[in-house]
Amino acid sequence: MTPDLFGEIDPPQRLLMGPGPVNAHPRVLRAMSADLLGQFDPEMTAYMNQVMALYRPVFGTANRWTFLIDGTARSAIEASLISLVAPGDTVLVVDFGRFGLLLTEILERIGAVIETVSAPWGQVVPLADIETAIARTRPKVVATVHGDTSTTMAQPLAGLGDLCRISGALSYVDATATLGGMAMQADTWGLDVVTGGLQKCLGGPSGSAPITISDAAAERIFSRRHVEKGIRRDDIVDGSGVRIGSNYFDLAMIMDYWSDKRLNHHTEATTMLYGARECARVALGEGLEARFARHAAAGRAVVAGARAMGLTVFGDDAHRMTNVTGILIPEGVDGERVRARMREDFEIEIGAAFGPLQGKIWRIGAMGYNAMKHKVLITLGALESVLRAEGFAVPAGAGVDAALEAWGA
Amino acid sequence: MTPDLFGEIDPPQRLLMGPGPVNAHPRVLRAMSADLLGQFDPEMTAYMNQVMALYRPVFGTANRWTFLIDGTARSAIEASLISLVAPGDTVLVVDFGRFGLLLTEILERIGAVIETVSAPWGQVVPLADIETAIARTRPKVVATVHGDTSTTMAQPLAGLGDLCRISGALSYVDATATLGGMAMQADTWGLDVVTGGLQKCLGGPSGSAPITISDAAAERIFSRRHVEKGIRRDDIVDGSGVRIGSNYFDLAMIMDYWSDKRLNHHTEATTMLYGARECARVALGEGLEARFARHAAAGRAVVAGARAMGLTVFGDDAHRMTNVTGILIPEGVDGERVRARMREDFEIEIGAAFGPLQGKIWRIGAMGYNAMKHKVLITLGALESVLRAEGFAVPAGAGVDAALEAWGA
Repeated sequence: MTPDLFGEIDPPQRLLMGPGPVNAHPRVLRAMSADLLGQFDPEMTAYMNQVMALYRPVFGTANRWTFLIDGTARSAIEASLISLVAPGDTVLVVDFGRFGLLLTEILERIGAVIETVSAPWGQVVPLADIETAIARTRPKVVATVHGDTSTTMAQPLAGLGDLCRISGALSYVDATATLGGMAMQADTWGLDVVTGGLQKCLGGPSGSAPITISDAAAERIFSRRHVEKGIRRDDIVDGSGVRIGSNYFDLAMIMDYWSDKRLNHHTEATTMLYGARECARVALGEGLEARFARHAAAGRAVVAGARAMGLTVFGDDAHRMTNVTGILIPEGVDGERVRARMREDFEIEIGAAFGPLQGKIWRIGAMGYNAMKHKVLITLGALESVLRAEGFAVPAGAGVDAALEAWGA
Repeated sequence: MTPDLFGEIDPPQRLLMGPGPVNAHPRVLRAMSADLLGQFDPEMTAYMNQVMALYRPVFGTANRWTFLIDGTARSAIEASLISLVAPGDTVLVVDFGRFGLLLTEILERIGAVIETVSAPWGQVVPLADIETAIARTRPKVVATVHGDTSTTMAQPLAGLGDLCRISGALSYVDATATLGGMAMQADTWGLDVVTGGLQKCLGGPSGSAPITISDAAAERIFSRRHVEKGIRRDDIVDGSGVRIGSNYFDLAMIMDYWSDKRLNHHTEATTMLYGARECARVALGEGLEARFARHAAAGRAVVAGARAMGLTVFGDDAHRMTNVTGILIPEGVDGERVRARMREDFEIEIGAAFGPLQGKIWRIGAMGYNAMKHKVLITLGALESVLRAEGFAVPAGAGVDAALEAWGA
């Protein structure tokens, strides 16, 4: 340890144009500097209720149970699955990328019987395939990712809820990478549990995960309620279902904490809650439709700019996420050297990739506070310069011009 | 929803003198307003390594595996237990309060065989009783709380590690409520896994949980390593042990994330990490011995002040936590009315209690940034006024005078 304890926090002023985290909106970081409150002080519980109200429109829902999980986006995925799914339950996973594999991975640990309906990386799963798979497997839960950043594809969700309801299944959607950037209509689409994260389109830091839960899903979860020793109360009755396999991720207890019962569970992460509240205020203040349009413009601009530079965009054009774009690393170019030059010469981060796409694509994100015209243009201009320096011939200025035109298209 | 989206965050300036959370140190909140970094950017991984170095002295350890869990203090408890304990393993729980019951609760969900050695609330468990219980139950893990805020008692830990090592057990200690405020000598005491939280003596917000893991415990955890699909790599080999029952709390994967391997797992909660880093810098900058002395002075002052006001202090004097004190609610006084008046007239929060102590004691905390002479004196002065208003005769000024004297004693 150095005598100065490593000095004050002082990160470089970097433009984060990868698949997330992205730069937080300054209003979010400012809100997080407010001092703390006791967890049951009336002002704190009022803030909790405000957060519930603010996230309902963000999710496109009227669900009473709309709140935060205290952890990163992944924590809300696990909380949802472990609270909905008992060991031995059949779950159908809609799998079209790494985060579909993550659903499988979490469900294996829960002891679920896992059925899968898949698409190759770069495509999505047709609704008809999901319908057939539901008929074949009779799942208790159908789980899917909305936008899978590993492939940059966005699974269409309209119609999924109807398929589930007809077959008696509940649906779970991981919307970490799209919430606040692409349309989410949990009620219209009939989705039961949807979770998000702050560090993508909502423009906040990782560490708090919004969740919404339909009444039907809440009923299933409360049927498994088992209040922990030491805080049992006469007004909270245990359910008869199989006990949820985790205490921290026990949604029944967490819902009792966010209800008027105010059952003590964890100590709410107050600063993250302040941040989550401000993320929603920024998004709703802008207007969700305007926000989705801004992300769509950014996505169009990145795609157009990349193509004008002679690069190939990865994946199916018809089902592209608006906020993150995969670009094939050209033959003969060292993808990691390009990323290093982008960072070192321009203080811009662009993303690498996972699994079968590792070393094959870059991922350029433009989301939340970074889904802005000038940030997309700056990034493409920098990429042009770096590619030229790395020996890949790029028509001068073409990427930026094409992106500018596409932004307004 | 109101048209102004509930307005800007603007909590009252309240003095939080309960069992935690407490007011964060302003330096911590300022550090958290720094902008984000990409999770694998070299500056970010450097900050992660600094956090590891900064928390080693905080835990009194040289353990390589000293890092953060992304969640509240409770998340690190569950991560520790689910990663150390396989279903069917015998665990001895040292139980002397609500948070001992929490250990039991988490272990039940893991499927452990749970043995318990208990003390009544207000006392601690004698080391000899633990020794006997270990001999009787031959546990794989011995789990205890250090300071249990529900009873305000601090379990002595010296000697526990030796008992465990002799019997081949690993030890787990929940030091959420004491870390950074009372001495923690993980290595000297031979403890295997110790976890904390920021929102108590470390003077930060809830939402990030420091953890340290001995080499022996790391070996057991890595024997259960099972890297998730989608990010498997040739350089990371799975273990042969029983797979850890949670993905989010899989310490093997989280350790690979915090190692040079930088295995992608969750997206590190960057803002919370900045806060955790600053908490440690504040603590080490003050000096741990000075910090422990400050907390001890605060505890002495609260106890002396309460007694001088004619109040009875709860629990065993010999094993009192320094940072939170239980005070019996006098006969005929409405404890919740007192708490409400403290909050409404003085903007001071003091704590209620759980379980068998609910309605019987208040809990006054003085920890982290609030373990300060003036804050203790102000609190006791306010309590005197409130008690008098509620019809309980208090000798005027006696509490504050006694506390002032005890502070310097």
